[in-house]
Amino acid sequence: MPLPITPAQEATISPQAVEFLSAAEGIPIEAIQAVTVTRQAFHAAEEPVEESLIEKFNLKIENITMGGIPVLIIGSSSPDPKYQGRVIFDIHGGGFVMGTARERTALMIAGELGLTVYSVDYDLSPEVKYPIAIEQCLTVYREMIVKFGAKNIVGLSSSAGGQIMLSLIVRAQREGLELPAALAFYTPNTDLSGVGDSNVFNDGRDLVDNHVLVGAMSALYAGGVDLKDELLSPVYAELSGPFPPTVINTGTRDLLLSQCVRLYWKLREAGGKTELLVSEGMWHGFNWELELPEGIRARKAVYSFIKSVLDEM
Amino acid sequence: MPLPITPAQEATISPQAVEFLSAAEGIPIEAIQAVTVTRQAFHAAEEPVEESLIEKFNLKIENITMGGIPVLIIGSSSPDPKYQGRVIFDIHGGGFVMGTARERTALMIAGELGLTVYSVDYDLSPEVKYPIAIEQCLTVYREMIVKFGAKNIVGLSSSAGGQIMLSLIVRAQREGLELPAALAFYTPNTDLSGVGDSNVFNDGRDLVDNHVLVGAMSALYAGGVDLKDELLSPVYAELSGPFPPTVINTGTRDLLLSQCVRLYWKLREAGGKTELLVSEGMWHGFNWELELPEGIRARKAVYSFIKSVLDEM
Repeated sequence: MPLPITPAQEATISPQAVEFLSAAEGIPIEAIQAVTVTRQAFHAAEEPVEESLIEKFNLKIENITMGGIPVLIIGSSSPDPKYQGRVIFDIHGGGFVMGTARERTALMIAGELGLTVYSVDYDLSPEVKYPIAIEQCLTVYREMIVKFGAKNIVGLSSSAGGQIMLSLIVRAQREGLELPAALAFYTPNTDLSGVGDSNVFNDGRDLVDNHVLVGAMSALYAGGVDLKDELLSPVYAELSGPFPPTVINTGTRDLLLSQCVRLYWKLREAGGKTELLVSEGMWHGFNWELELPEGIRARKAVYSFIKSVLDEM
Repeated sequence: MPLPITPAQEATISPQAVEFLSAAEGIPIEAIQAVTVTRQAFHAAEEPVEESLIEKFNLKIENITMGGIPVLIIGSSSPDPKYQGRVIFDIHGGGFVMGTARERTALMIAGELGLTVYSVDYDLSPEVKYPIAIEQCLTVYREMIVKFGAKNIVGLSSSAGGQIMLSLIVRAQREGLELPAALAFYTPNTDLSGVGDSNVFNDGRDLVDNHVLVGAMSALYAGGVDLKDELLSPVYAELSGPFPPTVINTGTRDLLLSQCVRLYWKLREAGGKTELLVSEGMWHGFNWELELPEGIRARKAVYSFIKSVLDEM
């Protein structure tokens, strides 16, 4: 069943967005429970898109390991000399159960912003459970601090990757590690318990339903840990100081809009520079769409935030 | 019928906000159509609140006229000496059909921020129609430029007052008038035609319904002008340059969330510094509530934006 859209909603988004929503189908809960099948279908759909992005932006791809964890290096063919030595540390999305380091977000930022990306291929659930993925990404982050210096690293994450990133930064902060120069979150999943205003009003309106997110993805990842645990759902975590400058991107149709809003106020009140980008009528992960006008605009705003932070350093 | 609220929505807002929503009733369309009765009921309810605010903040109230238009001066009893000579130019809300210059927003900013407020008592609809209120406010603004200098003026507006302010600034910009130092919009009504994502998903969830806003308030004010006319619904207006630094405040339950989001991108793309504040689970005008934690936080963020702009000048 396609997602609902009325003439009043069509009036304020691009024709391309109307087309996307009219053709979109939500992910059924049964599909997520059958993880292997879902993963195969997801990767079969993504692989040609990823390859077209690599070709379009003429990206150089290299597989390495850092601290024993597989990492994909995505190199721009025309790196911005102004930002030499600066790198992106990416944690991909995919509901903890699917997705790879070669996700679109990572490819697009390398191509569009001209920074080299280090993207982590952390282990997926249900094969491994919380907090394995966070520990793997933290291992890579430690190596990256040594290699590049924290102040040259920009953290990027999407959706479930946002949970990993946020929890990782909270831990790093508590351990006294140096934090990255800036953070960019695309529609982060920071509360795995499924509460919030948009978890109600956008349920059935977004690509991801609340019962898929909470009932399936969170359950497969959490492995019995209380869904309001402060490091599993890090929007509840106590922060021991301000976060680095952070930009958060979401849309009014995003199931996770409320989580983005709550994270915004949390980081703002902790004293860090924080920017919230909300796009009209946009769904979970609309920023993934290369040609979508609202996706282009949102990515430009994220890149502009990152550049302004790096320029001020 | 009280507004709907689920346990998942209760979990992420303050107990005071839950209490407010559990007791709140939407405005029925019949009430707005019977404008005189609605106005009387509204003012009977507001007057004691306004008087308590005047007493609490020990405000000095003076009635004057500027260019023949009635204006209320609301003076702080403890003005911030740092901002001497700086004033607020306020255009009140009330759906074009009710409300006065003595609205809570104006009283609270005088008391909480310590700036003197000039609040316009423009004529209401249906007695007068668009664009009379805008012209009256523009007359006052012209006088204020002469009296204080545009760079010492901060524009403030709420809801329907946001339509007047936005349209006024577009006109001022086209006429080559100097623009204010900054603008603050509380949940502005910038598209009177009723389109937008939140006009659908928040219809029946907010204090104001879309059919009240469009069917009644807009109709009483517009007087037959096309609801997508670019100065009646100024989110469609072509801007002839960047706006002054602007902060826009809304919430996820606000019927006008989409309008705020659209205004944010419009002003940002025109090149002005723009900040969007979205509060979790908050309704149209939640910032009016003196003691509501989310209201206090939102007002502080608005004041902080205004101060940062004035400090940088």
